[in-house]
Amino acid sequence: MDGSDHLAHERSKAQFDVEKMKIVWAGSLYAFQVSNRIARLVAGDPAFRKENRAVLSRKELFKNTLKKVAHAWKRITELGLSEEEASWLRFYVDELSYAYVHWGMFVPAIKGSGTEEQQNKWLPLATNMQIIGTYAQTELGHGSNVRGLETTANFDPKTDEFIIHSPTLTSSKWWPGGLGKIATHAVVYARLITDGQDHGVHGFIVQLRSLDDHLPLPGITVGDIGMKFGSGAFNSLDNGFVRFDHVHIPRNQMLMRVSQVTREGKYVHSNVPRQLVYGAMVYVRQIIVVDASIALSRAVCIAARYSAVRRQFGSENHEISGTGVETQVIDYKTQQSRLFPLLASAYAFRFIGEWLKWLYTDLTQKLEANDFSTLPEAHACTAGLKSLTTSAAADGIEECRKLCGGHGYLSSSGLPELYAVFVPACTYEGDNIVLLLQVARFLMKTISKLPSGRNDELSGATAYMGHMEHYLIKYSCNVQKAEDWLKPNTILEAFEARAIRMCFACAQNLTKFADQSEGFSELSTDLVEAAIAHCQLIVVSKFIEKLQQNIEGNGVKQQLETLCYIYALHLIHKNSGDFLSTGSLKPKQASLANDQLRSLYAKVRPNVIALVDAFNYSDHFLGSVLGCYDGNVYPKLYEEACKDPLNDSVVADGYGEYIQPVLNQQLLNARL
Amino acid sequence: MDGSDHLAHERSKAQFDVEKMKIVWAGSLYAFQVSNRIARLVAGDPAFRKENRAVLSRKELFKNTLKKVAHAWKRITELGLSEEEASWLRFYVDELSYAYVHWGMFVPAIKGSGTEEQQNKWLPLATNMQIIGTYAQTELGHGSNVRGLETTANFDPKTDEFIIHSPTLTSSKWWPGGLGKIATHAVVYARLITDGQDHGVHGFIVQLRSLDDHLPLPGITVGDIGMKFGSGAFNSLDNGFVRFDHVHIPRNQMLMRVSQVTREGKYVHSNVPRQLVYGAMVYVRQIIVVDASIALSRAVCIAARYSAVRRQFGSENHEISGTGVETQVIDYKTQQSRLFPLLASAYAFRFIGEWLKWLYTDLTQKLEANDFSTLPEAHACTAGLKSLTTSAAADGIEECRKLCGGHGYLSSSGLPELYAVFVPACTYEGDNIVLLLQVARFLMKTISKLPSGRNDELSGATAYMGHMEHYLIKYSCNVQKAEDWLKPNTILEAFEARAIRMCFACAQNLTKFADQSEGFSELSTDLVEAAIAHCQLIVVSKFIEKLQQNIEGNGVKQQLETLCYIYALHLIHKNSGDFLSTGSLKPKQASLANDQLRSLYAKVRPNVIALVDAFNYSDHFLGSVLGCYDGNVYPKLYEEACKDPLNDSVVADGYGEYIQPVLNQQLLNARL
Repeated sequence: MDGSDHLAHERSKAQFDVEKMKIVWAGSLYAFQVSNRIARLVAGDPAFRKENRAVLSRKELFKNTLKKVAHAWKRITELGLSEEEASWLRFYVDELSYAYVHWGMFVPAIKGSGTEEQQNKWLPLATNMQIIGTYAQTELGHGSNVRGLETTANFDPKTDEFIIHSPTLTSSKWWPGGLGKIATHAVVYARLITDGQDHGVHGFIVQLRSLDDHLPLPGITVGDIGMKFGSGAFNSLDNGFVRFDHVHIPRNQMLMRVSQVTREGKYVHSNVPRQLVYGAMVYVRQIIVVDASIALSRAVCIAARYSAVRRQFGSENHEISGTGVETQVIDYKTQQSRLFPLLASAYAFRFIGEWLKWLYTDLTQKLEANDFSTLPEAHACTAGLKSLTTSAAADGIEECRKLCGGHGYLSSSGLPELYAVFVPACTYEGDNIVLLLQVARFLMKTISKLPSGRNDELSGATAYMGHMEHYLIKYSCNVQKAEDWLKPNTILEAFEARAIRMCFACAQNLTKFADQSEGFSELSTDLVEAAIAHCQLIVVSKFIEKLQQNIEGNGVKQQLETLCYIYALHLIHKNSGDFLSTGSLKPKQASLANDQLRSLYAKVRPNVIALVDAFNYSDHFLGSVLGCYDGNVYPKLYEEACKDPLNDSVVADGYGEYIQPVLNQQLLNARL
Repeated sequence: MDGSDHLAHERSKAQFDVEKMKIVWAGSLYAFQVSNRIARLVAGDPAFRKENRAVLSRKELFKNTLKKVAHAWKRITELGLSEEEASWLRFYVDELSYAYVHWGMFVPAIKGSGTEEQQNKWLPLATNMQIIGTYAQTELGHGSNVRGLETTANFDPKTDEFIIHSPTLTSSKWWPGGLGKIATHAVVYARLITDGQDHGVHGFIVQLRSLDDHLPLPGITVGDIGMKFGSGAFNSLDNGFVRFDHVHIPRNQMLMRVSQVTREGKYVHSNVPRQLVYGAMVYVRQIIVVDASIALSRAVCIAARYSAVRRQFGSENHEISGTGVETQVIDYKTQQSRLFPLLASAYAFRFIGEWLKWLYTDLTQKLEANDFSTLPEAHACTAGLKSLTTSAAADGIEECRKLCGGHGYLSSSGLPELYAVFVPACTYEGDNIVLLLQVARFLMKTISKLPSGRNDELSGATAYMGHMEHYLIKYSCNVQKAEDWLKPNTILEAFEARAIRMCFACAQNLTKFADQSEGFSELSTDLVEAAIAHCQLIVVSKFIEKLQQNIEGNGVKQQLETLCYIYALHLIHKNSGDFLSTGSLKPKQASLANDQLRSLYAKVRPNVIALVDAFNYSDHFLGSVLGCYDGNVYPKLYEEACKDPLNDSVVADGYGEYIQPVLNQQLLNARL
């Protein structure tokens, strides 16, 4: 490589302080410093190199990952990293493994659902990795509907044990990461049965494999569920299945923080509120929203840098004999109108993730003080935003890949694996459509309470519904020229009007059904659309709120303002049907939003490379030839290509058996 | 497996003659019979099994494919299959290989661009596979802009040869399938230079590898470009690169049907029209449209069958202790509103593909008679429809995958590979956005000619533009109740009004720019949207035309009518912003379209499984556990999982080195 920065010219055009923007993106100076230090540590360690994962066979890939995880844990121990630093390290290693499930689901499940005694017993084992755990909820035949789980945990008062059992094939636990080949223990969700009575689904700690020789314990059939989307991606993780044939576990391995089974087999509740379960859901989904902003921003970073490097076609006067310099792809308006809203979305999702983190902390404090008033709203909010951001990020990553033209299809672009790794977020931890229906249900309930006049009960992100009358009757958008779209309140009101009118229309239509659940089912598509309108409003409003904070750094706030407007106005354009059909905007006003959008694209253009630099992603973490920092794309593409195993020999393996006989017309006699 | 048909109940509900629908789908009784016969031949041959491709390493996968191709060619020869039958056989083998490129691009290039003499020399060699060819156009730094290609073919009058040369790294040929390890010859596109003068890009037959030992010939550096999106998928094909270092080829290996270089080095044209090149483009893109309908219909078939098998949640009264039967997922309205429009799209694309085939035949006859009048329209039409159908099919396949919930993410669902194989169609053979801009350019040209009053010149799919005045001034949609949307003319007029008004608005806005090319660039996003509106209209209108034909079979036409309405009305709903902002519809009318859509979903629901059965896809071809004909999904999922190599041993390979030391806290001393 020639060592020069092919994007230096782009970087010199930036109109803001990139270093300060890095801190805004990271959330704080401290967060920036920790993550930056660990990122460099990982990027500089040859044991963490991740190229060529795509060419490995399943077994090679899996073993390779086990090695990295062990190395990571060794480094964490050697360096005495804090829990926070360790989790950054795992993040930057950027390879899915049992470690994510162990730390991200098994440990939190015990913390959240175990009694103090249980925590004292299991947490030290888990945090020292003397046991490796997974989280076994979904079953072969049962995903979204947790209440439909079939695995049973039958209490046997004679032995003071639970008998964990899989009564059918469809009750096999299916999907848990790390379960297939590695986990020694699992939190297993099963129907608790005492004395023939079914108490619904509860969690149990079940040992799966011997700690001596790693063999499955008696009664346990366990294995990997096979290959998944993409090469590399989730295939480095042993998502697994397990079937239980009357497996006995001690009574004290039921997670008993909320409910208990006594020695006598009595089912009782502690005074710990069961609502805490929802708190845990809010926690997990909040993390997924942060993941969405990270995944999308990686893709945007790659597509933006490559779009600045790549040239294609040119103005007519340069096209003589192909000697003229072609136009940078990033300067095409069609490229901008696809890429820049995704850049804006990455920032919007980053800030909504930050806000959800705050919401979760706030909620936890309230729950611990037995205040459940904000739980439904917080739950709906997180569910909706998980759905909105993961769908947009998944689509956005693929769009970024397409924005890279043919080369985006190469594994070395990093984009295929990024998509394959991220996209299951649309269906796991709550299918995105199912979640939107939950949001819609909450919104309909909120509206149904409105006529009682207790508008003061409206909290958080639904507060705007208190102005329903205003929006249904009086409101009309006052935009008259394109610049009017640069007023935060104007934007906010348009989104509020649209959301309220769509929700209200659904509520009205629901009243036409005698059977409410039939009505809800019949109108579910409209309800989903109303829920999306509500969620988009939340993202827009929190982005606007963010801009009202004190933001340091020369030009930083101005860039964020531009991105905020781009985010909002591109949503108006994309969903103009909603805005127009509800009369929230007039056609002329929607068209002015589109005009303004074009000006904003021109405004942000010189800053785009610096705005993706602000994500502070190392070339190691990005893992993309097209997105490399120095923009020296073509030699790197060529170098990566040469590494493919097919290039190990000049003549392909199989030539003698399968090609030569074809060319020599000797196939009919050949043994294939 | 239990041998029973778990979807029998669904099949019994069908209200039409499935066997007759199979013929409609196939295009004719003859087409059905040939394809059906060959499909069974392939499905019944164990050598063509394709499970477990996902777990193979790159080298294993590649060799495995070479074996299948050789076997296929052996069978083709043994059975004396016709060219048509052979191409069906390759189709059903369903594994990307050099054979597709050889037959689909190399042979047609020689047929299309070679002189009679050249055809007589090269075609027998190619059709006997004594040589294996590829098609080398795109370069590392040059894709969409063919005029920007850098490879040179310099005529040397002294030796009567061309010197093929790659002057830069970015001029490396990059992407051609079969090039990396297999092809012995290539049609190479290079800038023809005679006596220092550049005549633009022309095709040349270049031998790459020795026919004796398969080694690359002197001056040729050739290899594979590395892994691509997904596992399996395009990785069974050696997309390759090649660099030429002053490679000499005889003068008669320039493809000389249209232009020639004489012995003296004079560049001359034959009387064969150069427009034939565009005819070739129309041919290739027409095939891609057919591919789009096939790929989408496969995904829809899988998602529909699994949605009928899978049950999740239930009505409240069935939910007691999880013992009640849950609801079939296909009965959820949210599932229907995502799946059924895709089913309708699959049929719509099938018929538009059929129509394009006719268009190509018609065009070829005209071109051969030196009538070029319909070429621009045919070219724009095919370009636009390639873009429209491939984008919709790619998105649709992913949507189908998500409609299968978590299990759609498993390779055994067949959907990840289906997506990975199909999605490059969005960027190859003309990037979809670049193509839409070409359509837009054509539309603007068409409109600019309108005021001259020569409306009779409007041909084919732009004929409606002759009614511009009517649509701009007089037209208003007369829908007053939901049933009004069941009139083909009402639908057609709404689509025509929207397309014309969007095009006209663009044309008006273009006049505001002094510099036309600047205006075109500035408004390119709007132009793309207008082009999409035009293309959607074509698909809708051709579907309606199809229904005016005589269609045999009890209930067959009725089903197609329902699908046609679903296709059209879901487009209205999805693009309501266009219809409303142009005033082509009033909000109430858009809302009535949505109501009608709901009724249509209910109407088609009992027929859905039979409608996907009509695609006549064997389980072998579908390659999906979730989409298997008998619906016996869960045992098959389990069986497939057990085949993963990770399940070869109970304790994972790597346990001793990387897991035991972790569990035993002996990591610090371990050598990793």
